[in-house]
Amino acid sequence: MKSDIEICRETLLTPIDQIAQHAGIHADDLTPQGTLKAKVKPSILKRLADQPEGKLVVVTAITPTPLGEGKTVTTIGLAQGLAKLNKKVMACIRQPSMGPVFGVKGGAAGGGYSQVAPMEKLNLHLTGDIHAVTAAHNLAAAALDARLYHEERLGYDAFSVQTGMPALRIDINRIVWKRVMDHNDRALRMITVGKNEPGKNINGIEREDGFDISAASELMAILALAKDLADMRQRIGRIVLAYNLDGEPVTAEDLQVAGAMAVTMCEAIEPTLMQTLEGVPTLIHAGPFANIAHGNSSIIADRIALKLSEFTITEGGFGSDMGFEKACNIKAQQAGRGPDCAVVVATLRGLKANSGRYDLRPGQSLPDSIFAPDADALNDGFANLAWHINNAAKYGVPVVVAINRFPQDTDAELAQLKTLIEQATFPTRVEVAISEAFGKGGNGALELAQAVINACEQPAHFKPLYTLDQTLEEKLMTVAEVGYGACGIELSDLAKQQLAELKAHGHDNLAICMAKTPMSISHDPSQKGAPTQFTVPVRELKLCAGAGFVYALCGNVMTMPGLPEKPAYLSLDIDSDGNIIGLS
Amino acid sequence: MKSDIEICRETLLTPIDQIAQHAGIHADDLTPQGTLKAKVKPSILKRLADQPEGKLVVVTAITPTPLGEGKTVTTIGLAQGLAKLNKKVMACIRQPSMGPVFGVKGGAAGGGYSQVAPMEKLNLHLTGDIHAVTAAHNLAAAALDARLYHEERLGYDAFSVQTGMPALRIDINRIVWKRVMDHNDRALRMITVGKNEPGKNINGIEREDGFDISAASELMAILALAKDLADMRQRIGRIVLAYNLDGEPVTAEDLQVAGAMAVTMCEAIEPTLMQTLEGVPTLIHAGPFANIAHGNSSIIADRIALKLSEFTITEGGFGSDMGFEKACNIKAQQAGRGPDCAVVVATLRGLKANSGRYDLRPGQSLPDSIFAPDADALNDGFANLAWHINNAAKYGVPVVVAINRFPQDTDAELAQLKTLIEQATFPTRVEVAISEAFGKGGNGALELAQAVINACEQPAHFKPLYTLDQTLEEKLMTVAEVGYGACGIELSDLAKQQLAELKAHGHDNLAICMAKTPMSISHDPSQKGAPTQFTVPVRELKLCAGAGFVYALCGNVMTMPGLPEKPAYLSLDIDSDGNIIGLS
Repeated sequence: MKSDIEICRETLLTPIDQIAQHAGIHADDLTPQGTLKAKVKPSILKRLADQPEGKLVVVTAITPTPLGEGKTVTTIGLAQGLAKLNKKVMACIRQPSMGPVFGVKGGAAGGGYSQVAPMEKLNLHLTGDIHAVTAAHNLAAAALDARLYHEERLGYDAFSVQTGMPALRIDINRIVWKRVMDHNDRALRMITVGKNEPGKNINGIEREDGFDISAASELMAILALAKDLADMRQRIGRIVLAYNLDGEPVTAEDLQVAGAMAVTMCEAIEPTLMQTLEGVPTLIHAGPFANIAHGNSSIIADRIALKLSEFTITEGGFGSDMGFEKACNIKAQQAGRGPDCAVVVATLRGLKANSGRYDLRPGQSLPDSIFAPDADALNDGFANLAWHINNAAKYGVPVVVAINRFPQDTDAELAQLKTLIEQATFPTRVEVAISEAFGKGGNGALELAQAVINACEQPAHFKPLYTLDQTLEEKLMTVAEVGYGACGIELSDLAKQQLAELKAHGHDNLAICMAKTPMSISHDPSQKGAPTQFTVPVRELKLCAGAGFVYALCGNVMTMPGLPEKPAYLSLDIDSDGNIIGLS
Repeated sequence: MKSDIEICRETLLTPIDQIAQHAGIHADDLTPQGTLKAKVKPSILKRLADQPEGKLVVVTAITPTPLGEGKTVTTIGLAQGLAKLNKKVMACIRQPSMGPVFGVKGGAAGGGYSQVAPMEKLNLHLTGDIHAVTAAHNLAAAALDARLYHEERLGYDAFSVQTGMPALRIDINRIVWKRVMDHNDRALRMITVGKNEPGKNINGIEREDGFDISAASELMAILALAKDLADMRQRIGRIVLAYNLDGEPVTAEDLQVAGAMAVTMCEAIEPTLMQTLEGVPTLIHAGPFANIAHGNSSIIADRIALKLSEFTITEGGFGSDMGFEKACNIKAQQAGRGPDCAVVVATLRGLKANSGRYDLRPGQSLPDSIFAPDADALNDGFANLAWHINNAAKYGVPVVVAINRFPQDTDAELAQLKTLIEQATFPTRVEVAISEAFGKGGNGALELAQAVINACEQPAHFKPLYTLDQTLEEKLMTVAEVGYGACGIELSDLAKQQLAELKAHGHDNLAICMAKTPMSISHDPSQKGAPTQFTVPVRELKLCAGAGFVYALCGNVMTMPGLPEKPAYLSLDIDSDGNIIGLS
């Protein structure tokens, strides 16, 4: 089969203004960026205010292998399948991060005949939104360190006299705003900044710091959760960057950098319109990871798509314990709108991996043996799919299982999996469909599309696991116990202290954003299948007052990935005609 | 008078496709990015190969105050003035860095009625080229640290066996590729990376490192100097990132990251077309600073403009000792094409500052007293202008002095300055014109435009100060002695050792890119006017094999600026209508 980029390049795409027009987006709602992508102005929502909303379908997955189980392929394939069945449909996905593109997983445009096109534009820069997030984030960091330096250098009083601004009296030990970069750069996880040559004092104040990947920036969450530009501006102002010597928060507003940060992001607030290989309009907006951030594309994009289409297909990153949990408990509560249907993507390889019988390591290819028939491994790994179906059902929505078929998959194993699902008992009606969207595009997803239509005809009774009026502790316990099936949580001493402070500062009403490994339902990546009898260790809590959640770091999760021994960038290049090669 | 952004917003701009068409750029040469900016495909040069080239005018300046003396205002105003005189003209400028935009100087779109528009697009992100440079640069850094880590962790032999790639055996003490960020972030100048929690070894190998501003990246120079995409790809491969344990260079090609870096920059190779407030087509491309980089916009943009217009107006950063020196000795030699005329921008305030009688500090406003009439200060400071006229003349080109008039300037002082110029003796014919381009646009630059036309009618005998076949030492001495008027250079022990190694590795044929303060013709920012009797201390030499030069760090120059006590970002914000305010 051809490579993703070859398939994409051979497809005749439609000019984006025609895609827009067909979708109901007028020329004056649109700022084309070349002929195949365009920014959509959020002001379109005013024009569409009286339109009814379509159905919101969230695609999630089983606990995946490090290469992913084809959630975006299925999202795009499903959208294409619905279009083939003459439904008005839009897909809403996140902008890929360069970290995975150059690192382990590769691009995030889908694959095969179910891609967002042109995939090289989507995977690299797109319309610059992640760069804008990175720039705004690092502006605040530079501003904070510079302010710390000037106040220390001049003294608080002299600083105030010279500048006419109050001294912020930043506590050097309580700066909570790291820097970010959109790369997998492990050497930046723990760094010392502000070092000086001996006897000089020109580079700032020395302190311990680090970089996160841009996808984990609070600004990325704000971009994804903001209602509009004004709301984004207000949220940025609320970001807590540090604490002062009295233990009071120092916000971006206090530092007078919130305006400049919003200015830096004022084009990023506009979703980017692209198309699938079959011409289905697709909005790309924001790019939070689902392990170390809230993992869902933007509320603004969803709102636009819901107004313009009968079906809006979006996805939450990784398994249903990750992005889908946050789609329901964070995004839906802020949007005031939950999903109408959950699609759980499963693969034979992914379920067999969940048997725990294979030694899978991030950064290395999957062993060939995982594609060989093995009824026992499938049987054992099925527990993971059953868990994710039950989990999605907890949120009161109908569930469709999409079996994403790989070329190596045998009919016998696919039949085995269908039987396993049909014979199991679930608290909600479960539809099952095999998707061949990778190899066949929308035609390979007709069965899946029909299953989703059927599911959406059922009444949805969406409910989040917790409501915002519960305490932070209750919410943490609920996500761990109800959301993961854990016995409870174990707060580190640091987390206990942070929880007390958050409560004291009146932040009990925020949501919880869990950062944990996506490689297990538990916090321990080695626990495959459907682990039980575990307690989730919460090592640190971070206030994200702008995003509207408290960020809980669980287990050993790291907020800056690293490059593996044989990273994806090795195969990337430009050919003699100037075309990009090796991107997948 | 209205603010720059107010003037810009009130101007009715022409759709960029019409600007392009009028300039001779066909629709298929163009990728519009919105209605007011567009990428121009370098392939246009094939179509235009047989067209004759117009005149190349390089705008330079006296030694400036920290706020600049209006070089871009004059560049844009001159272009507009020439258009008013019915000349076919294009301007070529650099993309502004966010460092100055948020830091001291503000934007770099020109000002008043001589701006590139929309100025907020130019000053913030534009079409993402600087972000692409930053991303490609930091990809190489992340790749290098990751390779170092994996090779050390596994051992060289095991690394080779596991990956099938040779171990690079990077010398941890000889990594010469820092990271970059497009902000003034002094706390990142000297950092320690790769730190680990005690007893762990997951974040890489601890070592001393630092960030430069993106404008100083070798990739930025490559973007500005490359002939085309294939040339850019080859140059990236030649970049030396580190040395191995045998002292041999480790290049981006050796690390197999050069392809991915080029892929990351493959849209950046296309100049961006915009327009001035009076509709003059302007190409924006690359953004190297002239103090810590080579300070000129791209060769590709110049070549396109020269083919399409009678006059191409471009600029080199800071005074003629800085960007203009590099325009002639680096850019012109690589392009095979020198300027036909030099315009030296002078201001009364800038000349008075060069008297040394004022206490000017970066980050603080100029004292009001500098605008008060002071014939003696002007008389003393005139030495600086005379020096720059003589300096431009050294390169064999006719010189036009553009006196950039400020509203506070008196007729008496302007007359005094004109008389000083007319009474002085120069080795070339010198035209003088007062420019009121800031307040009056092209109509304020008619006299200047006519002076430039006159100057360009004279034969130019461009010659660089050195030729590439001279030794590196000879070139360094030539720039210092002939280019600055110094008594010579003084190499640090480190620089001596580096020079010997560069020669041993066969790099004697490269150009020299001096990094020094722009606040004096010498290396010492306190020496105003026309300093003599100084020796330039060269503290470090860096190989930029991809850019084609050796980078010489002189005096205390720093390659990462810092934010001042009252940075420009303080006034930036979004108003209730979503418009950007406070940008200048």
